[in-house]
Amino acid sequence: MKTNFSETKKLFNLPEGIIYLDGNSLGPLPKTAAQKVTQMMESEWGEMLITGWNNAGWMHQPVSVGDRVARLIGAEPGHVVVGDTLSIKVYQALASALEMRPDRRVILSDSGNFPSDLYMAEGLIKSLNAGHELRVVAPEDIAENITDEVAVTLITEVDYRTGRRHDMGKLTAKAHAVGALTVWDLAHSAGAFEVDLMGCGADFAVGCTYKYLNGGPGSPGFIYVAPRHVEHTRPALSGWLGHAAPFAFEPSYAAGDGIERMRVGTPSVIAMASLEAALDIWDRVEMTDLRERSIELSTLFIETVEKNCPMLKLASPRDPAGRGSQVSFHFEHGYAVMQALISRGVIGDFRAPDIMRFGFTPLYLDDDDVLAGCEILTEVMQGKLWDRVEFKIKARVT
Amino acid sequence: MKTNFSETKKLFNLPEGIIYLDGNSLGPLPKTAAQKVTQMMESEWGEMLITGWNNAGWMHQPVSVGDRVARLIGAEPGHVVVGDTLSIKVYQALASALEMRPDRRVILSDSGNFPSDLYMAEGLIKSLNAGHELRVVAPEDIAENITDEVAVTLITEVDYRTGRRHDMGKLTAKAHAVGALTVWDLAHSAGAFEVDLMGCGADFAVGCTYKYLNGGPGSPGFIYVAPRHVEHTRPALSGWLGHAAPFAFEPSYAAGDGIERMRVGTPSVIAMASLEAALDIWDRVEMTDLRERSIELSTLFIETVEKNCPMLKLASPRDPAGRGSQVSFHFEHGYAVMQALISRGVIGDFRAPDIMRFGFTPLYLDDDDVLAGCEILTEVMQGKLWDRVEFKIKARVT
Repeated sequence: MKTNFSETKKLFNLPEGIIYLDGNSLGPLPKTAAQKVTQMMESEWGEMLITGWNNAGWMHQPVSVGDRVARLIGAEPGHVVVGDTLSIKVYQALASALEMRPDRRVILSDSGNFPSDLYMAEGLIKSLNAGHELRVVAPEDIAENITDEVAVTLITEVDYRTGRRHDMGKLTAKAHAVGALTVWDLAHSAGAFEVDLMGCGADFAVGCTYKYLNGGPGSPGFIYVAPRHVEHTRPALSGWLGHAAPFAFEPSYAAGDGIERMRVGTPSVIAMASLEAALDIWDRVEMTDLRERSIELSTLFIETVEKNCPMLKLASPRDPAGRGSQVSFHFEHGYAVMQALISRGVIGDFRAPDIMRFGFTPLYLDDDDVLAGCEILTEVMQGKLWDRVEFKIKARVT
Repeated sequence: MKTNFSETKKLFNLPEGIIYLDGNSLGPLPKTAAQKVTQMMESEWGEMLITGWNNAGWMHQPVSVGDRVARLIGAEPGHVVVGDTLSIKVYQALASALEMRPDRRVILSDSGNFPSDLYMAEGLIKSLNAGHELRVVAPEDIAENITDEVAVTLITEVDYRTGRRHDMGKLTAKAHAVGALTVWDLAHSAGAFEVDLMGCGADFAVGCTYKYLNGGPGSPGFIYVAPRHVEHTRPALSGWLGHAAPFAFEPSYAAGDGIERMRVGTPSVIAMASLEAALDIWDRVEMTDLRERSIELSTLFIETVEKNCPMLKLASPRDPAGRGSQVSFHFEHGYAVMQALISRGVIGDFRAPDIMRFGFTPLYLDDDDVLAGCEILTEVMQGKLWDRVEFKIKARVT
């Protein structure tokens, strides 16, 4: 059955007078989330106390919630676990992958990757102190740099600034052809379009749940390990909840079955309840429908902006197949324009040096929202309203 | 002003008919917590959306909440940061400490440590692959094993099974005398009694907030680094929120100022709101008063149990100075006794092979609770009610 997006829109709390084009940073509040969290706190924590770990199923949540995420990213059920943060999950995936390629020393990434991924890789390399190299190339050069020196690629599928999307299938195949492994960061993919981890043969994938998935600020990260690898991965962050028998309190670590081993410490059950409320909405969504609407919305935005605001230069790929679910424009005064937009209720964001970015999220945005946003943007651009903002910013700084 | 514990007790949701002696595993629900979380979700996340990171102060929370914890553990303000889980914080502290002692190879711990700490150390050692050794000795032998081979001690101050408390001041001094560093795990200390990190000269400390601090299931961990060290520590888990300028999105990592560098990824703001509600209660508490009441309650428990249930053998130190805020007893049929107790509304827990443990938390327990718990325990022991439970357990297994 076709997804009904006018119905899903009603399931979110969208503040009056706001056009929210920043769901790629932080998704909005699902209407049932606070109630679901309150219920968990009062009926489970409040009444069951410590017994909630078994009686309310808290202990099993990282895997059961992981299964709900797995469907959205084309992963095998039982092979995604939710917890910690995306940065921690990057570290886990990279550390495991490097050990699986002990004769290789290169982590290959690109300059379009989100900095935290590069930082975590840097930190790991310094700790290992074994001559590894983080090789960062331009995004368009990544394919040709996948050589047999590469132990693992660390690639964010969608560029957080431009929305440019890598070809996961092709790059994974290239990596496998030279014996390299892949870690895919799905921060701007999960909930943005259909991801097909199984079909692409991805080795590891990681992501967060507070952007397109709408789990709330700081909602947990997730990690996927391909079934063919998981029993051969050693968890570098070997916490007790990844142990084969956490409640045996054995003195030595023994990795748990399958993806369970990628659990570390005690996960936030409160955060998990909010994420579950968000995933209830996702249960109503077909990812192919979502992608179709996302392309319609972003194409409408590009066409309208280019017609009305010729000073803005498209920073995202024009071909929808080459984009995630955001659209970015270059403009010299982009920072001030974004401030002017935000003060008028259109929320996007700015990334240095000159990128204004706008996220398109069919779950709660429709054509009218996009056109209303364009109208305000046009007003700001045609009236050069950023001038006043820049004056204010300078006045504040000096 | 003397802490008013009959007032603090009213601030918790305590289920009717339950005597909760397991606050050392998971503290109960503060009455304002659900409301505080709802308010954060609806007024901050719901209304401010992405701008909440600045406008609602979410970005600064790990340090501002850290300051509230700092007071309870005798740490300098501005030197505790909240986030991730205790296991992750153990990893961070250990990794930093080992790098500060590059010529030494021993991590010294004891068999009374919580297994996750040992597991995290094991995992780190394997990753470093540099000949480190995790040396685990009996708790009573720890002092004499602090030699100049030791890079860092990894000690949980209070044994999770027996409640035995190490002398933090003495052991830290011993470590420093031989040039070793200390990582103190305060899982069963923070909120259990006065901790004096500054006075003891501790180097690193870590802990969780879901036990005595009552932050809720999976409430975040925390880490302390002594001011004299923090600028010299390299964060092994070098995530973007520990970067000197997270929003500059620079390609290379540069550690943030002071304790900020121990932040990693995006923290759960929802979990933090619940923890803040719990800390509101702690603001009314003087730690010296708490300790005094804790000793009164646990002494009353020991005396009553020993009088009425001679089959139970005290597993905790008899001297209150040598204990945390829990009391444990050995009994062959301890598991079945604990099941019988729980079915009668007295919640403690069991740790293999034969330990029944009971936590004493003056914030919401008084003499009447302790005596009522003792009465039920006496009933179970004198009536040998565990026999029936053991029969049921066996029947279920076969």
